[in-house]
Amino acid sequence: MDISIIGGTGEEGFGLTLRLARAGNHVTIGSRSQEKGEAAAQKARELLGAGANVDGATNDAAAGASPVVFVTVPFGGQAEIYRAIKDAVGDGTIVVDCTSPLATAVGGRAWHLVRPWHGSAAEQAKAILPSGVRVVAAFHTISGEALNDLGHEMDSDVLVCGTDKEAKAVVGGLIDQIENLRWVDAGDLTQARIVETLTALLISVNRTYKVHDSGFRITGRDAWGIPG
Amino acid sequence: MDISIIGGTGEEGFGLTLRLARAGNHVTIGSRSQEKGEAAAQKARELLGAGANVDGATNDAAAGASPVVFVTVPFGGQAEIYRAIKDAVGDGTIVVDCTSPLATAVGGRAWHLVRPWHGSAAEQAKAILPSGVRVVAAFHTISGEALNDLGHEMDSDVLVCGTDKEAKAVVGGLIDQIENLRWVDAGDLTQARIVETLTALLISVNRTYKVHDSGFRITGRDAWGIPG
Repeated sequence: MDISIIGGTGEEGFGLTLRLARAGNHVTIGSRSQEKGEAAAQKARELLGAGANVDGATNDAAAGASPVVFVTVPFGGQAEIYRAIKDAVGDGTIVVDCTSPLATAVGGRAWHLVRPWHGSAAEQAKAILPSGVRVVAAFHTISGEALNDLGHEMDSDVLVCGTDKEAKAVVGGLIDQIENLRWVDAGDLTQARIVETLTALLISVNRTYKVHDSGFRITGRDAWGIPG
Repeated sequence: MDISIIGGTGEEGFGLTLRLARAGNHVTIGSRSQEKGEAAAQKARELLGAGANVDGATNDAAAGASPVVFVTVPFGGQAEIYRAIKDAVGDGTIVVDCTSPLATAVGGRAWHLVRPWHGSAAEQAKAILPSGVRVVAAFHTISGEALNDLGHEMDSDVLVCGTDKEAKAVVGGLIDQIENLRWVDAGDLTQARIVETLTALLISVNRTYKVHDSGFRITGRDAWGIPG
């Protein structure tokens, strides 16, 4: 599958690039500058080996290049990024917002939050993007550091929020390609108001126990994925 | 240990009564009326067998009877209950607030939330109680239904928030007495703003997958408990 990752030069975005390209997808890394995007793509190809299918582009070009576009940027710059790419995103595109509204966006602590006017960062994204774009929220609880360490086996569930069930299933399929991640349908896009805050909770737990990659597993069922 | 459970006739409170009394603690069930408290205590003794040490009392009497007092009431009545018991709670008492501000308090859905003025239900409790009371927030993600089914093995972590580390460790010790529950120190009392919302998230997951007792496990470390 063709996937673009806006903010793919950052830790979370680059980690997702590595994991999704290793699973056989074609990944386009978007960056503010073409050169930085290409340099990150080159680095990914070196890490993954010759067969890896990774390109670099501007955010604008990357946003129009794929049917699934991940946006992995800090909350402080998220609205600006969406305003910059909204005309490039094609109708029907699935946009996966990975943003958490951490208080670091306003000089606060990473285990505190600010409250987005629209309820969640994902709903802010939806408010900016054209109405035909299918917004899904996911990956808030997956450590960027762990994604980048290709020898590290993930141990976490990905909580996926969105109003479009088919779009959630497509994103869920990509999550299932990353070894030992599972996806759980957390409900409609407004549930992102809860799910996005879990980033801050995990940062609090990491801080308390001096660990680096605490995560979540949902219990109560052997399998999750597409609701039956 | 002597434990009181305000709202101990409700599903969550009665389930906690059963589990903590079975572990050998003396539990006083608090209710609005002495008779209802005693009837619930009688029912608990019948379910647990002759050795169980469970009494019933008014909320007021229960609040003053134990060094650890759980409050398991719906958010809609929580402030009123705290105002009613605040003069009875002794200095140094550990009060474990188990409330989640579900939108059902205002006629809304159980997978939606209202935002308490103080940030969280637990901080609202702290604002009402005398300053010498040690408030801890816990048990938001543990299904009352599962606690009541004594044959059901729990499969969940309990996220514990509070400013007083010793109080958190005391509550954590009680959690560890319930088979297959673990406690995780989630940070200070303000982190309850996040943790309390997880109730609504689990209700959303339960609803989507038609299950009854989804829960959380934190990954990234074999053991949690008291931070090292």
